[in-house]
Amino acid sequence: MLKLFYVPGSCARASHIALREAGAEFELRLVDFAAAEQRTQAYHSVNPKGRVPVLQTPAGVLTETPAILAFIAQTHPEAGLAPLHDPFAFAQMQAFNNYLCATAHVAHAHGRRPERWADDEQAQVELRMKAPGRFAECFELIESRLFVGPWVMGERYSVADPYLFTITQWLRINGIDRAGFSKVSEHYARMRERPAVQQTLEAEQA
Amino acid sequence: MLKLFYVPGSCARASHIALREAGAEFELRLVDFAAAEQRTQAYHSVNPKGRVPVLQTPAGVLTETPAILAFIAQTHPEAGLAPLHDPFAFAQMQAFNNYLCATAHVAHAHGRRPERWADDEQAQVELRMKAPGRFAECFELIESRLFVGPWVMGERYSVADPYLFTITQWLRINGIDRAGFSKVSEHYARMRERPAVQQTLEAEQA
Repeated sequence: MLKLFYVPGSCARASHIALREAGAEFELRLVDFAAAEQRTQAYHSVNPKGRVPVLQTPAGVLTETPAILAFIAQTHPEAGLAPLHDPFAFAQMQAFNNYLCATAHVAHAHGRRPERWADDEQAQVELRMKAPGRFAECFELIESRLFVGPWVMGERYSVADPYLFTITQWLRINGIDRAGFSKVSEHYARMRERPAVQQTLEAEQA
Repeated sequence: MLKLFYVPGSCARASHIALREAGAEFELRLVDFAAAEQRTQAYHSVNPKGRVPVLQTPAGVLTETPAILAFIAQTHPEAGLAPLHDPFAFAQMQAFNNYLCATAHVAHAHGRRPERWADDEQAQVELRMKAPGRFAECFELIESRLFVGPWVMGERYSVADPYLFTITQWLRINGIDRAGFSKVSEHYARMRERPAVQQTLEAEQA
């Protein structure tokens, strides 16, 4: 059986939603960040990166959201969560997911964990200050150029949708009004109506 | 025909090598970073992110190295550049590529382009100072846990190999001795023997 190591509200939510959309059987395993479980040797034996998400599979452990999302889509083809027979469309979806991972998430992380990139406290303050603006720029690009609509990639829902939904939830943490991005806002509302999303949010609150 | 927009020595080199390994027909298009071409409206009409690589295809434009690498592998199956029929192995390869993209490349970028994340000059100095150490940590993880050998994913060469080779070349820029990472060093030497790599380096110098 699949097991998803997660932290509520983290980027692991994207994989969590995707597993439910896929109709996959899986277990949830909360990682206790408050108790710094991610820094323990036991957790590092599962994921030496000390991060979430981790998807434990019968074949071994997977990390990195875009990789996990593509894996869920490929192993549940009947759920139609990615354009599996169109390498160009698949690559476009992957490019979107990579942008969220390597640019949008990274921009956000500078506001939350500036100590990753600067030791000096004043420098950390500077990183925190600039992060929301950088994060907003990512959403400007998504809104104006990357998002097709009604779903991220167009008419077909894909694993890019739960990922965008998850990252969109971080706008508020950055003090940014979602309403400033009309397509992203409508997408967010559309996602909130999906049973898989509602079940995910309930399960993470449990 | 495929067209690769690149800057010599940039992460676009990974896609460049992969195209040659695939036996793909492609054109090279140098993006003139020295003249800030990446900030022009003309370039933004191709790639609004203002970055390289871009792979222009008959179907449209692709960005983000991990997405482009998977696309090259999927569209040239005869070249055997990815485990296309094993979703778990494919996801492991993608996870490796994502780590290079979202963690290793990002760590390196803090030393080269700290202005992305901090406006204050002293804070930028702090980012530059910490970047090489963070970049070295990525290679410690690659060396100790992620790299299988003799190629990144084991016995089979894949698009993860040109990506690692490309990022390995940045160790020197960060003042880090490659010899401190024996598996990575041997991989680097092994890569230098491949005709596709030699042709890439020659073409980028031209």
